[in-house]
Amino acid sequence: MSLIWSPIPNTIISSNKLMFNPKTLPRRPPTIAAVLSQDARLASTFDFNRYMEEKAARVERALDASVPLREPRLVHEAMRYSLLAGGKRVRPILCLAACELVGGPEAAAMPSACAVEMVHTMSLIHDDLPCMDNDDLRRGKPTSHKAFGEAVAVLTGDALLSFSFEHVASATPPGVAPDRVVRAIAELGRSIGSEGLVGGQVADISLEGVAGVGLEQLEYIHLHKTAVLLEAAVVMGAIVGGAGDEAVERLRKFARRMGLLFQVVDDILDVTKSSEELGKTAGKDVATDKATYPKLLGLEKSREFAEELKREAYEQIAGFDEAKAAPLLALADYIAYRNN
Amino acid sequence: MSLIWSPIPNTIISSNKLMFNPKTLPRRPPTIAAVLSQDARLASTFDFNRYMEEKAARVERALDASVPLREPRLVHEAMRYSLLAGGKRVRPILCLAACELVGGPEAAAMPSACAVEMVHTMSLIHDDLPCMDNDDLRRGKPTSHKAFGEAVAVLTGDALLSFSFEHVASATPPGVAPDRVVRAIAELGRSIGSEGLVGGQVADISLEGVAGVGLEQLEYIHLHKTAVLLEAAVVMGAIVGGAGDEAVERLRKFARRMGLLFQVVDDILDVTKSSEELGKTAGKDVATDKATYPKLLGLEKSREFAEELKREAYEQIAGFDEAKAAPLLALADYIAYRNN
Repeated sequence: MSLIWSPIPNTIISSNKLMFNPKTLPRRPPTIAAVLSQDARLASTFDFNRYMEEKAARVERALDASVPLREPRLVHEAMRYSLLAGGKRVRPILCLAACELVGGPEAAAMPSACAVEMVHTMSLIHDDLPCMDNDDLRRGKPTSHKAFGEAVAVLTGDALLSFSFEHVASATPPGVAPDRVVRAIAELGRSIGSEGLVGGQVADISLEGVAGVGLEQLEYIHLHKTAVLLEAAVVMGAIVGGAGDEAVERLRKFARRMGLLFQVVDDILDVTKSSEELGKTAGKDVATDKATYPKLLGLEKSREFAEELKREAYEQIAGFDEAKAAPLLALADYIAYRNN
Repeated sequence: MSLIWSPIPNTIISSNKLMFNPKTLPRRPPTIAAVLSQDARLASTFDFNRYMEEKAARVERALDASVPLREPRLVHEAMRYSLLAGGKRVRPILCLAACELVGGPEAAAMPSACAVEMVHTMSLIHDDLPCMDNDDLRRGKPTSHKAFGEAVAVLTGDALLSFSFEHVASATPPGVAPDRVVRAIAELGRSIGSEGLVGGQVADISLEGVAGVGLEQLEYIHLHKTAVLLEAAVVMGAIVGGAGDEAVERLRKFARRMGLLFQVVDDILDVTKSSEELGKTAGKDVATDKATYPKLLGLEKSREFAEELKREAYEQIAGFDEAKAAPLLALADYIAYRNN
């Protein structure tokens, strides 16, 4: 399969096996507890929970203001119903954090942050449709097509998708140079289309019920369904924040590793946590015989892989100002060690 | 209904009636033959058919090159299946013509021209879905969901939509100032979302089967389902072509009148032509009791309205260089006097 680009230099992907290069791996991977205590140095000067709460509140206000309830009422109601349905706002916060890491003001990245959340919301609306995953509930509420009907749900996704681009183009403050706005828009586009979310979703559909899905395909799907949008969030934030090319590329690598980490952890949680702890059906992947990292690598190797991804994500951030880097590092930790 | 913005200064829209202001209308509206002979002055120095053929061929090549067949194969096949299914390419040609009218090179507008056609194609794919118009055939071929399944059709539309923005951002030549690229992207966004195509489609769905649809609602739907994208095509072309603000606004007015004209003529053709002449089912609007201009105004008044729209479209172009304006004027004629 020639589709696969490997984001992990220490990992050699060949046919159906993911092999670790033993020379670059610690003999005994650090335990989660050890890494957490190591990170405690940063945590002591950085209040992650407070940071997340404050950022999420500002993102919430910006999203609310970006799509006011106006005529035609139905489509704006449907857009707001899904866009303002809660969620941790991890993607927009990543965008803001990357912008501030490279010295830009939060305001420069807020339209990009909102755009990434609009795209994420649109992808959930379309994925929930009867012709896709056919889900009735999303975050405890009826899905868009259950609340508004299928036709309106399709159109609401389309409106959020096009508005995400329009919003970056028209709401990014004049202090950001127009060529940076154009580059941010191109990044957003790449994260959605045939080489992004859509590519991942189509690959997922194509492989449904196919036996013997290997690590290559699994990584392709995960990278495209999850990592691309985290990458767009971080890279857009860096670009509108004024980052040089080298900083942009390091943050891109950071985001790719973190995106894959997000999915590996998701797979691990599915087999190690109860439905109660997850707030959603646990063991769903096993029940549906879905290809996952624990299934293909085993649980222990999956955990090692997660540690490796996190270590490599951290490496990309090493050269930046330590205080400014604290939020992005804490977000990587949050993704690695979350319980649901 | 407070939704309605009237693009026609000589027309007073009130409640359910469209009234012509007799002072500004010619006593006897010119016949179509008279207007055609008047236009013959231009036609003598401008070969419209050759112009359309040459432009369409270049648009075709640019579209073909913009979405090469690559991995993941399925989604690129589906994108190309609908995007390269033929059609007169009126929207992209309008975009190129507007760019050249204001003195820009064709190459500056080609990515915008392709983007507008991608958006048009995506709107057809999503409108044809079972949950919308449920059409099996489009231009004599199975619709996207018939050929690739519903899930892939939804995703293909999403990919074309996001790629349209990405293409303008990444393929517009460096000679176009980035702030103009940003403005063009904002125009494209407005033409699609809740204030554009999607707004029109949602209004259409909301009014389905509702008795007593008036001219206001009809005009709202027509403006949003048809005129907005023609407007985006012309305005994007003008912006990337280097037009000043006044020229952009005159071309915007031209495109709005022409967009409404397009739809009024469509309604007239439905009641005056045979299915054979149209290449599609004639009398469909009457059969489905759909609100149309002939139904609400009568055939004669609809024709007068069409003449009025065309005259007003022409007025906007009056100040431009006559030779450079010939293609846009000929396109307005083409839209007004086409037979199918």
